[in-house]
Amino acid sequence: MVKTIDGRKIAKELNETTKEKVQQLKKQGIQPGLAVILVGENQASQRYVHMKEKKAIELGINSISKVFPETISESDLLIEIERLNDDPTVNGILVQSPLPKHINEQKVIETIDYHKDVDGFHPVNVGNLFLNVSKPYPVACTPKGVMTLLEKYNINVDGARVVIIGRSSIVGKPMLALMLNANATIIDVHSHTKDITEYTKDADIVISAVGKVATITEADLKEGACVIDVGQNLDKNGKLVGDVDYDPENSKIGYITPVPGGVGPMTIATLMQQTVEMCEWSKLK
Amino acid sequence: MVKTIDGRKIAKELNETTKEKVQQLKKQGIQPGLAVILVGENQASQRYVHMKEKKAIELGINSISKVFPETISESDLLIEIERLNDDPTVNGILVQSPLPKHINEQKVIETIDYHKDVDGFHPVNVGNLFLNVSKPYPVACTPKGVMTLLEKYNINVDGARVVIIGRSSIVGKPMLALMLNANATIIDVHSHTKDITEYTKDADIVISAVGKVATITEADLKEGACVIDVGQNLDKNGKLVGDVDYDPENSKIGYITPVPGGVGPMTIATLMQQTVEMCEWSKLK
Repeated sequence: MVKTIDGRKIAKELNETTKEKVQQLKKQGIQPGLAVILVGENQASQRYVHMKEKKAIELGINSISKVFPETISESDLLIEIERLNDDPTVNGILVQSPLPKHINEQKVIETIDYHKDVDGFHPVNVGNLFLNVSKPYPVACTPKGVMTLLEKYNINVDGARVVIIGRSSIVGKPMLALMLNANATIIDVHSHTKDITEYTKDADIVISAVGKVATITEADLKEGACVIDVGQNLDKNGKLVGDVDYDPENSKIGYITPVPGGVGPMTIATLMQQTVEMCEWSKLK
Repeated sequence: MVKTIDGRKIAKELNETTKEKVQQLKKQGIQPGLAVILVGENQASQRYVHMKEKKAIELGINSISKVFPETISESDLLIEIERLNDDPTVNGILVQSPLPKHINEQKVIETIDYHKDVDGFHPVNVGNLFLNVSKPYPVACTPKGVMTLLEKYNINVDGARVVIIGRSSIVGKPMLALMLNANATIIDVHSHTKDITEYTKDADIVISAVGKVATITEADLKEGACVIDVGQNLDKNGKLVGDVDYDPENSKIGYITPVPGGVGPMTIATLMQQTVEMCEWSKLK
């Protein structure tokens, strides 16, 4: 029977570790801080920002939220980011997506001081990741959380055949880079691949980050495969499901991250972990 | 019979195009400049630097070479780079590898103004490449030259199964990124892959950048495959050969870049092309 990779449990343990780290830092007079910028009134965005604030406070991390109206100009938003860049109490800055159409998202990402780029989206940090440089740098939180899950479940990555479905800047691409750095043989399939199942059927690890119900099914995977499902989709009954269609009671898959309860909880836990790491790195000179 | 991808011919055409571009720029009072830094007396490095100087002059590009003794300190080298960063007559700066062991190569690369990073090695430019950003940025010259060759020979990349052998920062990784941006299904195999031929035998395009004689042979490729051989090796007779072992008279391969005369000439031609592009970009505001 397929083993579930319990993201909630691992996230809980990670959060406890982060909380202890924060307590240790406080004893040295160091207080980590996370700033979240929200533009507009998108309800899902408001929920995500609220979850991040709540988790930060729970772990002892200072939470600074800046909410701006949809109409804020790009230049004013950039000024606000620069203000946070200069604020010594802030170790991590993230700008909640999506942004209004009149604001250039890439410009916003590049304005964040890359030492405070807690989402790991700044080109310098993406470059550092792809190059596998030796000094510390932030990494996109969802893929970083996936690597933690695999590590905790002792899933071998070195020399493994890893198929990544998707190539977004937020998940697919950093996932590819992390896997390559961990010595996997990596395969990236996407919307221009004729038949993705040609690749998934032999893969040791499949990571699906497409956002479509039943992107792959049981038949497209090999026996004992490890499946990381990053999908967050609503099926025809309005139920939250991932990209992978399988029968938990009767599957030949080895391991899978369930949706919900797999990758999702790890993303926020990793965001908190990384905020504290970036606080520690800022003290190294 | 296998068709040869004539790198010398395409490089010659590219150089002529670059030369005309330089003439057009000169009429507008714009003079592109390329600065090459060499540390020490490595003979191969001296040869490469000389080739670059010679080609630049031939195409009408200003050539500035700075040669320093092996003993130069890291901080003095960084000062010299900053001097070139501030020099408005310089559009491209490259530091010839290898550097002496007491100098941190990554630090040197990061000190080059990324707007003048003509080798495309700076993390910002690597990040821009991996993210496939829309604004112009420099790209590692060997992989960029490979894309030009494929384009000139109308080799389809979109949806193609592309296997890259190797994952160096200079070739393998930027090659992977360029191919992914061009919508190929990409597979990266390397020293931790159990059997690379499992992947090469089905590939539409194989790019070998390993640096080992007979990394792959005829038997490891499919009929009609396109092979890009980036290897530069000396065989047991001291002859310059690539990574790929095949019989030009009797091969089922579709296309191949010969060694020498394939990828090699394109690298320098691309360096010149990119220097002039970076000069043009510096005028856009």
